Amino acid sequence: MVKERRILVAVDESEESMYALSWCLTNLLSLNTTTLLLLYVKPPPPAYSSLDATEYLFAGDAIASMEKYSRELANSVMSRAEEVYRDFNTSVKVEKKVGSGDAKEVICVAVEKLGADILVMGSHDYGFFKRALLGSVSDYCAKHVKCPLVVVKRPKNV
Amino acid sequence: MVKERRILVAVDESEESMYALSWCLTNLLSLNTTTLLLLYVKPPPPAYSSLDATEYLFAGDAIASMEKYSRELANSVMSRAEEVYRDFNTSVKVEKKVGSGDAKEVICVAVEKLGADILVMGSHDYGFFKRALLGSVSDYCAKHVKCPLVVVKRPKNV
Repeated sequence: MVKERRILVAVDESEESMYALSWCLTNLLSLNTTTLLLLYVKPPPPAYSSLDATEYLFAGDAIASMEKYSRELANSVMSRAEEVYRDFNTSVKVEKKVGSGDAKEVICVAVEKLGADILVMGSHDYGFFKRALLGSVSDYCAKHVKCPLVVVKRPKNV
Repeated sequence: MVKERRILVAVDESEESMYALSWCLTNLLSLNTTTLLLLYVKPPPPAYSSLDATEYLFAGDAIASMEKYSRELANSVMSRAEEVYRDFNTSVKVEKKVGSGDAKEVICVAVEKLGADILVMGSHDYGFFKRALLGSVSDYCAKHVKCPLVVVKRPKNV
């Protein structure tokens, strides 16, 4: 029964995802044989070609500064996640991964590639319009990943 | 950290839900302070009034036999669940509940009323048409319950 488990937690800049991580540490890490995979997905770079069509061009340094911002965001999310699991005083093995692209697709591919046994994600309480526009990452993952999926809601009073 | 946890597992006649129960016993029951709430939701009784409209009436004994069938189905699901957790040799506290109505709505109300901390359910791999017709119970619950939701997929090879 005690085999290594690999738990993938999808983290982003939201408090919801940090709550999901801490819920996971409290509720799923009872065994010492767990590897925690932290995955952050950077949004895809803007579609330059469609901007060209409107005769608008990004200057090289604007692109560089967007890439720098996206790299810094990834670092800040990972440090925030580190703080969360350091608080738990756990000796769990942690692997950090940064992907890029459409979050829901990258997460599903990562589950497969990294051999995750459990996928944990926070639930964003988007309103109707944002949900209709963006779709729900957790709905998509529930349909596409093969492992159990934990969707963690952040209680209103936390 | 060690407070009582109440885990609600939605069970039905599917193998998927029994797999979800056994996954839950393996992965979530490391603490002895867990109460397992097994919930089975009976489908709502047929809408007699709409059948009246087509001048078709159920005889009293037909209704009685449908109710008997539904009761027997509930009992058989619960015995199957009992077998699953007996196999785990766990001394976990179990409470069995049977509801009636639209499964997704009854499950969400039960989570609230029974004070569940975690909701666990199997994932049925319905095809496109059945999903479009029925909607997905887990999608609905992900949107409506306030506690973490675990959607357990049954691996193809089990």
